[in-house]
Amino acid sequence: MRRVRIGLLGCGVVGGGLVQLIERERQRIAARDSIDLHIARILVRDRARERPGIEPGLLTNEAIEVIDDCDLVVELIGGVHSAGAYVRRALRAGQDVVTANKALLADCGRTLFALARQSGARIGFEASVCGGVPIVRAIERGLAGDSIESLTGIVNGTCNFILTRMEQDGCDFAAALRMAQQRGFAEADPAFDLSGADAMQKMTILSELAFGPLHRFARMHGIADVTTGEIEQARSRRCVVRHVGSAHRVPGGVEVRVERRELPETHPLAAVRDENNAVIVRGRAVGEMTFGGKGAGSLPTAAAVLSDVIELAASDRRPVAERIPSSMNLT
Amino acid sequence: MRRVRIGLLGCGVVGGGLVQLIERERQRIAARDSIDLHIARILVRDRARERPGIEPGLLTNEAIEVIDDCDLVVELIGGVHSAGAYVRRALRAGQDVVTANKALLADCGRTLFALARQSGARIGFEASVCGGVPIVRAIERGLAGDSIESLTGIVNGTCNFILTRMEQDGCDFAAALRMAQQRGFAEADPAFDLSGADAMQKMTILSELAFGPLHRFARMHGIADVTTGEIEQARSRRCVVRHVGSAHRVPGGVEVRVERRELPETHPLAAVRDENNAVIVRGRAVGEMTFGGKGAGSLPTAAAVLSDVIELAASDRRPVAERIPSSMNLT
Repeated sequence: MRRVRIGLLGCGVVGGGLVQLIERERQRIAARDSIDLHIARILVRDRARERPGIEPGLLTNEAIEVIDDCDLVVELIGGVHSAGAYVRRALRAGQDVVTANKALLADCGRTLFALARQSGARIGFEASVCGGVPIVRAIERGLAGDSIESLTGIVNGTCNFILTRMEQDGCDFAAALRMAQQRGFAEADPAFDLSGADAMQKMTILSELAFGPLHRFARMHGIADVTTGEIEQARSRRCVVRHVGSAHRVPGGVEVRVERRELPETHPLAAVRDENNAVIVRGRAVGEMTFGGKGAGSLPTAAAVLSDVIELAASDRRPVAERIPSSMNLT
Repeated sequence: MRRVRIGLLGCGVVGGGLVQLIERERQRIAARDSIDLHIARILVRDRARERPGIEPGLLTNEAIEVIDDCDLVVELIGGVHSAGAYVRRALRAGQDVVTANKALLADCGRTLFALARQSGARIGFEASVCGGVPIVRAIERGLAGDSIESLTGIVNGTCNFILTRMEQDGCDFAAALRMAQQRGFAEADPAFDLSGADAMQKMTILSELAFGPLHRFARMHGIADVTTGEIEQARSRRCVVRHVGSAHRVPGGVEVRVERRELPETHPLAAVRDENNAVIVRGRAVGEMTFGGKGAGSLPTAAAVLSDVIELAASDRRPVAERIPSSMNLT
C-alpha cells in the first residue's frame, strides 16, 4: 500500500466534492489500486469560512506550503494567473498535476505540457472537459488506433438547459435563464456560458487532442439572442435547437465552431436534454461513437479529478512522452 | 522510435482489419507515440487462401513461431481451447497480450489475469466488449474514482438489428433475421446471438470490471420467440422492445440479466437502432453516463485492438498489479 499525499489548491464546489468523494471511496480505491489517498494540505482564500466535513488544520493561505509538501498537486482554483503560477511551480519540480481548469489549458496548455515534458511530470485533465464524462481518455487513448474525422457535441450544460426548457415548457429565454440560475446551473453572471466562450474553450482542448497542434479557425455564436419563435419554427419542422460545438479538419488547419443548430428530432444530440452533455466522435474506422452524461456539478467533476489522481498515483513514473499526447507538446 | 513486433494469431474479419488499419495509421502512430508497429508473423489455418494486402511470407501454421518471436501477442482466433493455450503460453513468458476474445475472458479471465500477475505481463481486452466503443477503459479507469451502481446496455448488435427492423419495417422475426444475415450482422448459425449467450458473456466481463469478483446470479432470455404482436403492443404504448443486458448488486453478489424489455420511446436505449451498441453506466457520484457506437465489425473492432496495442507498446512495464483491475485477479 502506497500512501499518496494530495496537495489541494482550492476548496470550492469541486474541491469540496473531491474531499467528500475521497473520504467515501478511500477503502474501495485502497483495495483495488493499492494506494492510500490522503489530502495533505488545502489552499483556501478564507481560512475562517465554515467548511463542514473539512478538518480546519488542513487549511492554509500559503500555496507554497501545499505545493512543496505533497506527492501530487490537484489544482481546482480556476482562472489562469495564480493557478498557472502554481501549476508551473509544481511541474518544474517534477510533480504530477491534476487540473479541472479548462481556461488554463486553453490559454497555455502547450507551454504547460512542454514544462511537464522537461521535468518528467505528468498532467491529468479529464475533468477539464465535460465533467464526469471520460471524453479525454476516450479521444486520447480509447480511439488512439483510429484517425478522428470530426467532433460534434453539446458541451455547455447551461445553454442546453435553457434551450431544452424553452422547448419543453414553452417559456422565453429570460424565464429559462432564471430557472437555470435557481437550480444552480448558471452563474450569477452567465455571459461566459451564454456567449459560447465556455464551449469554445472545451472544444479547443478536445480539438487539440483529436487533431494535434494545427492552426485553429474559430467561429463562435452564443444563445443570448434565441427567441421562442426560433424554437417554435424548429418544432414545426420536427426539429430542435441545440447549441453545438464542432471541430473538423479544413485546408490549413482545424475549424472549431460553436453555434446554434437546428437538428432533426431523431438526431442523437436532440435527445440530450437539460444540463447533460454529449460528444459524438467520428473516427475513420470506428464510425460514430457517442459519449454522454453530466458535464458539470460537484461530484461528477470530482469523480473525473479522482480518476486522474488514481491513475497517476497508481502508476510508476513512465517517461513523460508516453503519457502526454505529443499533439499537446511544443517540442 | 521503438520498433514493436506484433505476433498476430488469426487473420479473419478482425485480424484482416487490424493489418489494414496498422498499414493506414502507422505514420500517425509513429509521430504521436514514438512506436513503429510491425506485424512480425501471422498464424492462419490455411496458408494457401488468397488474402489481398497481406504478405504471404508472414503466414504460418505454427503458433509457437508467432508467439515466441514477437514483442506483443494479439489473439484474434476466438474460442477457448487453442486460443487459451496460446494466450497462457505468452503470458507465462511475460509477454503482453491483446485479445478480442470475450468467450475466453468470460470462461477463464480470472486465471489468465492471475498468470499475467505472476509473470509481469499485461492483458488488453478493450475489443472484447462492444467492438470499437471504449467501454472497458471507461469503467476500469475513467470511472475509477466512483462506485458503480448499475450497468444497463444493448450489447448485441444482431438482436438489436432484428428488433429495430421489426419495429421500423413491420416485418416478422424470420424476415428481420434474414435481413441481418444478408447484411453480415448475423452468423449462419445465429443461435449464440439470439439466445442471449453472447450478450451474457459481455455483461459478465463488464460486471466483473465494475463490481469485482462477486458471485453472479445470471438470468438469460433471448429474442427468438419475439412476435410482431409484442412489438405492436409496445408501440401502442409509445414504447419499443429492446434486448437489454443489465448488472447490479444484490444481497450475496451481482445479478446479471439479459432479457427483452419494453422501454419508453424517450429512454436513451430506445434511440439505439440497428447494429449499434450502447451501455449506460450509473455511478454514485457521476450519475448516468452513456457510451455508444458500433459494437462489432472488422475495422471498429480492429481499432479497439489497436488502441490496446498502442497503450501497451508505448508504456514501459509498470508493475502488473497497477494495470490489471484487482477485481479480475484470483489472488
